[in-house]
Amino acid sequence: MKAAVLREVGKPLVIEDVAIGKPGPREVLIRTKAAGVCHSDLHFIEGSYSHPMPAVLGHESAGIVEAVGDEVRTVKVGDHVITCLSVYCGHCEVCLTGHMSLCTSPETKRPKGSAPRLFKEDLNGVTGPMAQFLNLSSFAEMMLVHEHACVAIRKDMPFDRAALLGCSVTTGIGAVIHTSKVQPGETVAVIGCGGVGLATINGAAIAGAGRIIAIDRQPSKLELAKTFGATDVIDANAGDVVKQVQELTGGGVHHSFEAIGLKATAEQAFKMLRRGGTANIIGMIPVGTMIELHGVDFLGERKIQGSYMGSNRFPVDMPRFVDFYMNGKLKLDELISRRIKLEDVNSAFDELKRGELARSVIVFD
Amino acid sequence: MKAAVLREVGKPLVIEDVAIGKPGPREVLIRTKAAGVCHSDLHFIEGSYSHPMPAVLGHESAGIVEAVGDEVRTVKVGDHVITCLSVYCGHCEVCLTGHMSLCTSPETKRPKGSAPRLFKEDLNGVTGPMAQFLNLSSFAEMMLVHEHACVAIRKDMPFDRAALLGCSVTTGIGAVIHTSKVQPGETVAVIGCGGVGLATINGAAIAGAGRIIAIDRQPSKLELAKTFGATDVIDANAGDVVKQVQELTGGGVHHSFEAIGLKATAEQAFKMLRRGGTANIIGMIPVGTMIELHGVDFLGERKIQGSYMGSNRFPVDMPRFVDFYMNGKLKLDELISRRIKLEDVNSAFDELKRGELARSVIVFD
Repeated sequence: MKAAVLREVGKPLVIEDVAIGKPGPREVLIRTKAAGVCHSDLHFIEGSYSHPMPAVLGHESAGIVEAVGDEVRTVKVGDHVITCLSVYCGHCEVCLTGHMSLCTSPETKRPKGSAPRLFKEDLNGVTGPMAQFLNLSSFAEMMLVHEHACVAIRKDMPFDRAALLGCSVTTGIGAVIHTSKVQPGETVAVIGCGGVGLATINGAAIAGAGRIIAIDRQPSKLELAKTFGATDVIDANAGDVVKQVQELTGGGVHHSFEAIGLKATAEQAFKMLRRGGTANIIGMIPVGTMIELHGVDFLGERKIQGSYMGSNRFPVDMPRFVDFYMNGKLKLDELISRRIKLEDVNSAFDELKRGELARSVIVFD
Repeated sequence: MKAAVLREVGKPLVIEDVAIGKPGPREVLIRTKAAGVCHSDLHFIEGSYSHPMPAVLGHESAGIVEAVGDEVRTVKVGDHVITCLSVYCGHCEVCLTGHMSLCTSPETKRPKGSAPRLFKEDLNGVTGPMAQFLNLSSFAEMMLVHEHACVAIRKDMPFDRAALLGCSVTTGIGAVIHTSKVQPGETVAVIGCGGVGLATINGAAIAGAGRIIAIDRQPSKLELAKTFGATDVIDANAGDVVKQVQELTGGGVHHSFEAIGLKATAEQAFKMLRRGGTANIIGMIPVGTMIELHGVDFLGERKIQGSYMGSNRFPVDMPRFVDFYMNGKLKLDELISRRIKLEDVNSAFDELKRGELARSVIVFD
């Protein structure tokens, strides 16, 4: 099958022939129908997070179940599924206390010594194992995953929009409703209006937030933010963002969301809180970067926390989020700026770097 | 009346004659029976937080209502009361959403231009207003406070132990049960075993925490911590505290509490968390001090938050905490290392600085 492979940090992905294994007892083989091109992939391409190479990237996808292992109970051949990188075991402490996105049980990953899922293939045939990325590797025509890395959804849901639910949209909505638990009428600020930021704004609108303030440097993204539910927008090029948020809200917001992954914006997210407010770090802060906070701000019971994959419980959340879309509450059409072929994946990353587009989705035939 | 006055930062308090006003409509005149000597007073003496001077210090007290204003509804003459510095208005957003310790309504403070509560007095009589400290000024024979700065308690509760509930003990227990919401069986670490730290440990025991790890540099405080409910103790002089906590708990605690107010220990509190864990900053970090956190730790949904006065709802909490003491669940006797007279207040601060004692309480005749 064709796949987009990271062979060297800082270099474009290479489209190669890659071989894929057969499902083990609890594994599922999925024909990939759509895969989002996400900033998190870019973090690994650029080396701010490291990964064994060569690796097939991609981690936000939807597809059709092609084959299942003997012991698989949650999906069946022909099911339409959304994949999720936060594979859960279902019986550890975090899984059983509603925090399954934090599950690190090794059993759902490939333990050392077990058969690899992907193999390099060249003119001489299969030559050796290749790394799977975040338990998925969606930039490929097929995926072989643990059954707890996918969930079946209704079949009238379009694949390209379903794919986005697998990572960016869940990350945004989940940060609002699960991590920060926004209540109707509370105020929200979102820093960064890319795919995750727009989903966060949409999540705040679904949760009934009062004022929803979108912050970005791109006027076009701020315009888009309004269609996702932002009640106010702030151009980060124009003056002190923290001061503007404080003025708009009479002293700061109840909830702020950092959806970029930068030191400066993470610190702003904390500063723009009212007393008792909660800052959520959604963006992936590069390894080694320190966040500096004024200790005295803790006296006002301000809080800062990470939100990983929207604190999702994805077998529960995905069908609900699909319904949100089908009922017109959740905007996904507007999140997709371009539909591309696998071969064009590098151009999508170039555009991500320029920060102009909401999101490209790779569509497979 | 006699009172202990801060006239100059860095200097001992001066015992002086101070005059006190008559109750306004919603004010209460209280005969002080006991006042704790707290690290927070020391912060103002040492100048790490600033306050108008001269000022009568003290903010952790209990006494008997001597007179009330016309409109006072919550206490009556003869009531035994605990005072609380976090005066609440009762009708703003934070008060009405269960976060009254964050209330900043000006109406419960003395608005500009209204009659002062305390006056300098010398041989020539009353000479001018004197600043009230944290709406209380407990290092004095009498206190004039808003009715929402005190709450009546049962009369069989001893005053010296009741006084401690007004600040340090509430701060500790409240951080556990209100701010961090420790659940039975979860793991807890407490850094600093002074009055607040010991109350935090006791709160964790009341909340049914599983492992309760006490951390301090003083072996005598660690011994005391065991009697308050610590299941494990770590001498901070012996090796890497974070590593020891991680080893004891298989990767970190669910809840950590910083009860000192230092940069290094605040950062340790965050580092010793398991994925999804919550660090609580109880200590007063000096103005200007930055807390530096590894951004990547937020990926594990770690959280750090301030706890101010134990997120108390003190008219609700104080009677409950008194019952805890009367029922033997809450240790207060062991928190009092020395009972002193007002004249000896400076010696209590000297001992606080040496870090050896749990707490001195000023007892008034």
